Amino acid sequence: MKKNNKKVNAAILIIGNEILSGRTQDKNVAFISNWLNSKCGISVEEVRIIPDVETTIVNNVLLLSKKFNYVFTTGGIGPTHDDITAQSISKAFKVKYEFHKEAYKILEKYYGKKKFNDGRRKMAKTPRGSKLIYNPSSAAPGFITKNVLSLPGVPSILNSMIENCKKYLVKGLKVKSKSLNLYTVESNISKKLGQIQKKYKKFVDIGSYPFFRLGKIGVAIVTRSTSLIKLRVVNKELLKLAKSKNIKLLKN
Amino acid sequence: MKKNNKKVNAAILIIGNEILSGRTQDKNVAFISNWLNSKCGISVEEVRIIPDVETTIVNNVLLLSKKFNYVFTTGGIGPTHDDITAQSISKAFKVKYEFHKEAYKILEKYYGKKKFNDGRRKMAKTPRGSKLIYNPSSAAPGFITKNVLSLPGVPSILNSMIENCKKYLVKGLKVKSKSLNLYTVESNISKKLGQIQKKYKKFVDIGSYPFFRLGKIGVAIVTRSTSLIKLRVVNKELLKLAKSKNIKLLKN
Repeated sequence: MKKNNKKVNAAILIIGNEILSGRTQDKNVAFISNWLNSKCGISVEEVRIIPDVETTIVNNVLLLSKKFNYVFTTGGIGPTHDDITAQSISKAFKVKYEFHKEAYKILEKYYGKKKFNDGRRKMAKTPRGSKLIYNPSSAAPGFITKNVLSLPGVPSILNSMIENCKKYLVKGLKVKSKSLNLYTVESNISKKLGQIQKKYKKFVDIGSYPFFRLGKIGVAIVTRSTSLIKLRVVNKELLKLAKSKNIKLLKN
Repeated sequence: MKKNNKKVNAAILIIGNEILSGRTQDKNVAFISNWLNSKCGISVEEVRIIPDVETTIVNNVLLLSKKFNYVFTTGGIGPTHDDITAQSISKAFKVKYEFHKEAYKILEKYYGKKKFNDGRRKMAKTPRGSKLIYNPSSAAPGFITKNVLSLPGVPSILNSMIENCKKYLVKGLKVKSKSLNLYTVESNISKKLGQIQKKYKKFVDIGSYPFFRLGKIGVAIVTRSTSLIKLRVVNKELLKLAKSKNIKLLKN
């Protein structure tokens, strides 16, 4: 994996009527985003969930691939009629949608020549010029076309493939984070917290999230920065704030 | 709730760094989408997850509110500095960001005059002209500005408020759905399934989703349509397809 001393960002494009309709609970956003940040120093800055409609996929792929360093798509790379991610990406980039020789070989070997029917052969088609993202669970590969990485929608299969994306990514500056869990309510600290955020806004993002744990209400203060030193400075100020208001801390 | 014999659609805009970073698993998309379809006949056609950045919120609110009948925002309406949904929507629609008299009274009564501090008062501010979405859990109301409904990010609070959105929505044609669980693999039926979809594509959407249950692999065929009659016709064809291939059905 190449390194880069700059911020690198990504978008996730979830393709699938079943997620939009609420039939299926998405789990891929949290998984991909956590993996990208912790393993690659890449921050996800936008997510879109869209239906299995070709023009919608084409437009979103084009727009997001221009706006972000990488785009991860999930869903729509199986054998059925509603799996149209590969042909849509081909249209977006105006390249041929065709059999990928290596993918064809992988799938033919996996299923055996006799059972390698039309549906299964469809999974060997990619936009021309794509490179494969190997699939150790069920053979059918994902692929990368320009800066767009296409993965399946089934979380267990996607999870098993994610490490195989690494070789195509340039590593960025990792965003480190610290979490401070305070036994208080947001409105008790919101004013001072806002002042601290203002003071360090160039270097540190401060998020405030209410939680309910062991029957008690609290607030998780999450600080995020590419600089560990700055993160420590801000967390010292936060601890001082907690002390000044007699707020107890929840140890993790 | 007014009725409408047309399709009515919506977008969901999830505002929050904690969802984008993967720290928090979103649960609001599935909940809102299911509720909108089953109770209001409204289909969610796009979801975006964006960071707590004012210009990003402004641009997305404007774009989605033009493109869809309704926009539901979640997150960013609490007392802290990173809660900027109300001021961003004010900017988007070029209206004043100001105290909402009724919201002020509700919150002042809930907290008591002495404990009604700056942070809590912030939750009484909305874009001028907004109407309130009452909150039976923790008082702080959501609000509707033009066709944009703003709800909190905490799922339990959002869930308790959703029925109070109803009076602001026009009911559309409900999308009905049927699910057929077949003990087979997608590639075994993909060709015929594609033909059936082609034949009925004007009226019925057919989705195909692999599942793993009780140690067995299967495929859920989900049909969706505003016409129950058309849905039955397609499901008859699907049953015929299953029979012709000796595929067993999983009863729910």
